[in-house]
Amino acid sequence: MCGIVGYIGDKQAQEILMDGLSKLEYRGYDSAGIATLENGKILVKKKKGRLQNLSDCLELTPLNGKIGIGHTRWATHGIPSNVNSHPHCSLNNQIAVVHNGIIENYMDLKEELLALGHLFASDTDTEVIAHLLCELYNGDMVETLQTAMKKMKGSYALGILCSDEPEKIVVVRKDSPLIVGLGSGENFIASDIPAILKYTREVYLLDNGEIAILTKDTIVVLDANGEPVDKAVFHVDWDPGDAEKGGYDHFMMKEMTEQPKAMVDTLAGRLNTDGIRLDDINLDAETMKNINRIHIVACGTAYHAGMVGKFYFEKFARIAVETEAASEYRYKDPILDKKTLLIVVSQSGETADTLAAIRLAKEKGARVLAVTNVVGSSIAREADDVLYTNAGPEIAVASTKAYLTQVGCMLVLAMHLGQLNGEIISEEMKRLGHALLNTPELVQKAMESKEAVKTFAYQHFNINDLFFIGRGLDFYTCLEGSLKLKEISYIHSEAYAAGELKHGPIALIDDGTIVVAVCTQEKVFEKMLSNIKEVKARGAFVLAIVQEAHKGIASEVDEVFVIPNMDDDITPIPTVVYLQLLAYYLAVARGCDVDKPKNLAKSVTVE
Amino acid sequence: MCGIVGYIGDKQAQEILMDGLSKLEYRGYDSAGIATLENGKILVKKKKGRLQNLSDCLELTPLNGKIGIGHTRWATHGIPSNVNSHPHCSLNNQIAVVHNGIIENYMDLKEELLALGHLFASDTDTEVIAHLLCELYNGDMVETLQTAMKKMKGSYALGILCSDEPEKIVVVRKDSPLIVGLGSGENFIASDIPAILKYTREVYLLDNGEIAILTKDTIVVLDANGEPVDKAVFHVDWDPGDAEKGGYDHFMMKEMTEQPKAMVDTLAGRLNTDGIRLDDINLDAETMKNINRIHIVACGTAYHAGMVGKFYFEKFARIAVETEAASEYRYKDPILDKKTLLIVVSQSGETADTLAAIRLAKEKGARVLAVTNVVGSSIAREADDVLYTNAGPEIAVASTKAYLTQVGCMLVLAMHLGQLNGEIISEEMKRLGHALLNTPELVQKAMESKEAVKTFAYQHFNINDLFFIGRGLDFYTCLEGSLKLKEISYIHSEAYAAGELKHGPIALIDDGTIVVAVCTQEKVFEKMLSNIKEVKARGAFVLAIVQEAHKGIASEVDEVFVIPNMDDDITPIPTVVYLQLLAYYLAVARGCDVDKPKNLAKSVTVE
Repeated sequence: MCGIVGYIGDKQAQEILMDGLSKLEYRGYDSAGIATLENGKILVKKKKGRLQNLSDCLELTPLNGKIGIGHTRWATHGIPSNVNSHPHCSLNNQIAVVHNGIIENYMDLKEELLALGHLFASDTDTEVIAHLLCELYNGDMVETLQTAMKKMKGSYALGILCSDEPEKIVVVRKDSPLIVGLGSGENFIASDIPAILKYTREVYLLDNGEIAILTKDTIVVLDANGEPVDKAVFHVDWDPGDAEKGGYDHFMMKEMTEQPKAMVDTLAGRLNTDGIRLDDINLDAETMKNINRIHIVACGTAYHAGMVGKFYFEKFARIAVETEAASEYRYKDPILDKKTLLIVVSQSGETADTLAAIRLAKEKGARVLAVTNVVGSSIAREADDVLYTNAGPEIAVASTKAYLTQVGCMLVLAMHLGQLNGEIISEEMKRLGHALLNTPELVQKAMESKEAVKTFAYQHFNINDLFFIGRGLDFYTCLEGSLKLKEISYIHSEAYAAGELKHGPIALIDDGTIVVAVCTQEKVFEKMLSNIKEVKARGAFVLAIVQEAHKGIASEVDEVFVIPNMDDDITPIPTVVYLQLLAYYLAVARGCDVDKPKNLAKSVTVE
Repeated sequence: MCGIVGYIGDKQAQEILMDGLSKLEYRGYDSAGIATLENGKILVKKKKGRLQNLSDCLELTPLNGKIGIGHTRWATHGIPSNVNSHPHCSLNNQIAVVHNGIIENYMDLKEELLALGHLFASDTDTEVIAHLLCELYNGDMVETLQTAMKKMKGSYALGILCSDEPEKIVVVRKDSPLIVGLGSGENFIASDIPAILKYTREVYLLDNGEIAILTKDTIVVLDANGEPVDKAVFHVDWDPGDAEKGGYDHFMMKEMTEQPKAMVDTLAGRLNTDGIRLDDINLDAETMKNINRIHIVACGTAYHAGMVGKFYFEKFARIAVETEAASEYRYKDPILDKKTLLIVVSQSGETADTLAAIRLAKEKGARVLAVTNVVGSSIAREADDVLYTNAGPEIAVASTKAYLTQVGCMLVLAMHLGQLNGEIISEEMKRLGHALLNTPELVQKAMESKEAVKTFAYQHFNINDLFFIGRGLDFYTCLEGSLKLKEISYIHSEAYAAGELKHGPIALIDDGTIVVAVCTQEKVFEKMLSNIKEVKARGAFVLAIVQEAHKGIASEVDEVFVIPNMDDDITPIPTVVYLQLLAYYLAVARGCDVDKPKNLAKSVTVE
């Protein structure tokens, strides 16, 4: 996790760093800090807690200097505290470092450095880097860094200031994201584009192992072998206004409200009356002849989209699919070869475990298709094909529009593959195409029931546990709804395949326990009704979500949300919106910080 | 769920029925009831709650009669209550019925019968059967039942008394288990063998759709077409002593203690110095050439064994495996053909959803291999091959020795298949064989640490939530440990793949939250350490389970259980024992009824 910024130029660095960090707070907000260099001296201010704490502190005693680095932290090694905040400095204050990633062998390095007389102030892995660079320093920070890199194991994006080279910022990235922004008489670094969008739209996307040396007028990039690289300039055409709250209380509500538009953008140009057209990917019928299995690998919310994907690919393209969490997949020896298509799903395109899965699959000769939201992200760059979700920047930690568009992409892709291998008939294609085209409107309708969801949430917010049950596609919606609720309301919720309830978890159902029963699938509606009776018989308070045709269920349950009648296959798209709203309003009613839930960061770039 | 018994002979029925029900209480204990027939009149006593309630009631006013039926209930339709208890009678008291299963169209039937003037006393689906039989009765209960069966949808094992035919019990089974016991001048029916083992060892295992007509001296069995069937007598050679508590406070502790022996029995005759020998199954190298994928389908605890199975089959036989919950599998359209091997896992061999999965797979031409504990069970009879776990009767609702032996069978099977298709080399075979032979001793050692686990449990029993984390094989152990804890202690526990924590669930970690970190896999040990630091940084109280080699972890966590060093691949077998013990002692410390957790039944024979 963590966010990094850096500035070198003619302006006072503090303001630019703080502005950049405010755009990166979604990457972590356990603490924040900046370091500037003035008159050959490194000055540091850092503060536990939200960025505002640091801001208050700088207001009293600002840091001068036209060169600086900044950091917003998501704790991994050592608790959130002032002393564990970045930047970290060498004891002689010669070197300051900001770091995103994890140094895996920091314990060994720390022992070596302790033996050499270095004293440590913090519990972090990062501080080791500052001391190591100080120990190795030979008057040239780039050479020193290259030597240090041979000793460091793990992932790191680093921004480095050195008081002996006061006109320079040295940066490097390995398995953690870092970009360089090109200005006129000034240059920037950042973990992510929004941090510097106010100042420049021209960036270098650093590749793994690359080092960049910034002065105010020049940028030199060296590859992993130390050879200069001629980087291509990437022009960013995002609208920075997209990343504002737009009048809503929370980014999450803003982003939920954007979902109908996001679905339109996801489908735009890809769906027409004849079928699916995916110009952006190169998978053709010939290639598909050689594919006999699909692996879908992702984390968190994207993993749930991958489960829906499995259902779609198996149903419409009749290809066997395995969906697995990236952190599990990468450490086993998956059955994987040239006939395997690996599909990865990641909003940020920087998820470390997912990236590792891509590398593993490519080594074995598998083809990789990425579904991601971030153009130019590491995952997008390493995959053979990319299908962008086109959801626009997502700031709230709890993913909403990204999930919705990931599910949309899964269906579009399944139809595309079914088309390529001839498993899908044209009537089916038309039915699905028609149903998909209705999704933006159905999502809009779901958003319009927010007052009803809010009322329910305000009546029931005072709970410790909540259960979701569903079958088939509804089960995946339940998993996502449960994760959403956990993330932002801290209610211990859990989702079950309804048929599994009786095999153990029903023991937890008690008088008044809320059970959300998602019942949108005609095929298993009667079975869901039996499961509802079972939990009712144990005293549960049941909220059912059904299509209009089954609104008569009201007499069997305590509360119903009725969604319009629709094709059963697209129900995951509008239905999850109710569960997003439920999580949102329960969290708001409980006084939780919806956009910045404790312990979580937006993009998980460490393993 | 539910358990059925019946008696016809020269003795007083009450005592035999009550004794039988006491052996079936593991099938449900929401209520119990019996009906007898004397002097052409049906007499009924039934009582909400444990069998003891009924017993107390019968002590005051016994039921006379030498023919009778009895029932112990696990509620599905209608709450546990006196009026919802079985037997259910027609209004004129002419017909009494006990039922295990679910009548799916009971609402429609009830409406018809109401229109015809029948009045209903209960909320059950079963009562419909009594009224329907009464409505259709033509003086011959067998013919009447055959007509009724055409109208009833769903699953049922039925025992029927009719006052107009006072020398007879009529029974039928469809998708729920029922056996007939053969005595001398007396005959029996029961859901399961232990109920009548005290009286006879000769039984008929009824097949689907079969009707049996019992008098005290005769048994006639008719097939689904009404034709007489010449049933083979099945001789039971179990020791009834096996089903007693053997001095322990709970069946669960007794069964955990039996685990080393159960592992010995599972491996006996199957493992030798050259490899694996499975005489009981007919899968050969030729057949395996035509198998290109495995589906593993199961429910609850057995589903977790299936997950471990997937790991083993993929690693040692290099065949792609999909493991799915039976209740999900049966309602989708799985990619399934003659080249698929379906492996089902079920302790009881009667799990309804799993049985349905077998039928689905057989329709598509797949070969079915069952791993089950109950000889002669429905699943054993319908599968092409059966590998028995040989764990002996399991009475406690929370499965322990069955799980352990299922996992053992999974590894044995994976080695066998790897041998058949040549994917496993002989050194690997030797390594695994050697490791497996050590498992009984390792399980014994695990059981010997019960005092340490007990101490931990008694220090921490007062909690609402608990989390398990692990990677790879440890993750499946965590899932099983979490289910165990839920089932018997009603603590809301959840298991996560440790790498998924950061993608949401870590939001639930707070000061003092107990996190059990299972870290037995060398390959991911360092990664687990990082995850432990993350939860520690959020205030978690961490209990780690590690192999001896990593006992140094003690300085990083709050508590450690150290298991002996062993082959990483067999760790699921001894490790889960610690989690079983943890669940057991937490439940005991909380005053829970370990053997009979609320809301749960041992064998889920309804969907």
